[in-house]
Amino acid sequence: MNDTRPKAVCLLSGGMDSTVSAAWASQQYDVYALHVGYGQKAAARERRCAEDVARLLKAREFRVTEVPFLQELGGSALTDARLAIPTGAVSSGEIPITQVPFRNGILLSLAVAWAEAIDAHAVVIGAVEEDSSGYPDCREQFLVALERAVEMGTKPDRDIRIVAPLVHKTKGEIVRLGVELRAPFAASWSCYDEGPLPCNECESCLLRAKGFREAGVQDPLLK
Amino acid sequence: MNDTRPKAVCLLSGGMDSTVSAAWASQQYDVYALHVGYGQKAAARERRCAEDVARLLKAREFRVTEVPFLQELGGSALTDARLAIPTGAVSSGEIPITQVPFRNGILLSLAVAWAEAIDAHAVVIGAVEEDSSGYPDCREQFLVALERAVEMGTKPDRDIRIVAPLVHKTKGEIVRLGVELRAPFAASWSCYDEGPLPCNECESCLLRAKGFREAGVQDPLLK
Repeated sequence: MNDTRPKAVCLLSGGMDSTVSAAWASQQYDVYALHVGYGQKAAARERRCAEDVARLLKAREFRVTEVPFLQELGGSALTDARLAIPTGAVSSGEIPITQVPFRNGILLSLAVAWAEAIDAHAVVIGAVEEDSSGYPDCREQFLVALERAVEMGTKPDRDIRIVAPLVHKTKGEIVRLGVELRAPFAASWSCYDEGPLPCNECESCLLRAKGFREAGVQDPLLK
Repeated sequence: MNDTRPKAVCLLSGGMDSTVSAAWASQQYDVYALHVGYGQKAAARERRCAEDVARLLKAREFRVTEVPFLQELGGSALTDARLAIPTGAVSSGEIPITQVPFRNGILLSLAVAWAEAIDAHAVVIGAVEEDSSGYPDCREQFLVALERAVEMGTKPDRDIRIVAPLVHKTKGEIVRLGVELRAPFAASWSCYDEGPLPCNECESCLLRAKGFREAGVQDPLLK
């Protein structure tokens, strides 16, 4: 590794998008990978996948931490055992019940704290705006506004950018970029559930399948 | 309680400033009090005090949650056992070693998640800008920028303000406001340490003492 490269804290959920955005980041930054557990149903699987992806991308460091508050809040099908994860269609317009309130605000704040501590120049997130579930905290205007808050709320000698390399890409473009960057798709996990194989019915599986279909590439996870 | 009052999530550290800001909030909002532990040295004491303050202010709900990541990061005298808490003078200009990176960014994000879940209209924080330790995430310009990010990053039907009623007050003005509002000062705890009595030497004790001195009021904690 080159010691003169700037540092970036990369949020790594273990999913397809954060795998590609971390692969993108590793081209130009020393990667400090952060995985956050928040009581999501596929937590153990996502954590293992995030760790594998970080290792394969030669991250300088991989950290895992927990935010139990998001599960304690309840109300999301991702974290609440009483709510089933919807299957069969990608939502259009409506914010789906899988939304976890202000999740990216919390995840990014944790990543910014680490970035401030190690003087990293970027926090990288795999947020996708259009071709996604429509969560408000995945939109570029949120990320731009948060970057401004980070500038105001960290030490004056810090310069931390919020970088979302995929925010305006379609799922097909994300897969193509990942193939180009040799992103370790086989180590990633997108399914909201924790079966031995992806369910292929939840919104996250459907969005992933759309990406590989549009890119004309076989998903190595399904081989 | 009046069911038509709007809700506010109030961050309650157990200290003097958040006690006064929550007392202020309870005049106009139904208070949902949130205390966040992050491995600070006085954690157990602060938690008990926050709970007492919430009860005395008749908060609708009191929640405690943990963000272990801030302790895991280290580097702050508030959370790192190897670093001593400085004593004897209020810092001027320099950001002191008690700074915890982006702490208010993280605490506010958690509060916003709760506010989004229960449709609260405000997140109230006892941040103080000038008459304080100079932490960048206590400045009004940070809070204003974050409010904009919150507007962008939460559901479109939500309207969550970040309210910092003390941000431009001196410590003396804060104590006077607290007296006016009958804020439960006797239940609060400002000391960075966890002795049976406040140490009266750390920056937080000195700022509290300055407030009571300027207001010409006896601190009930020292009676």
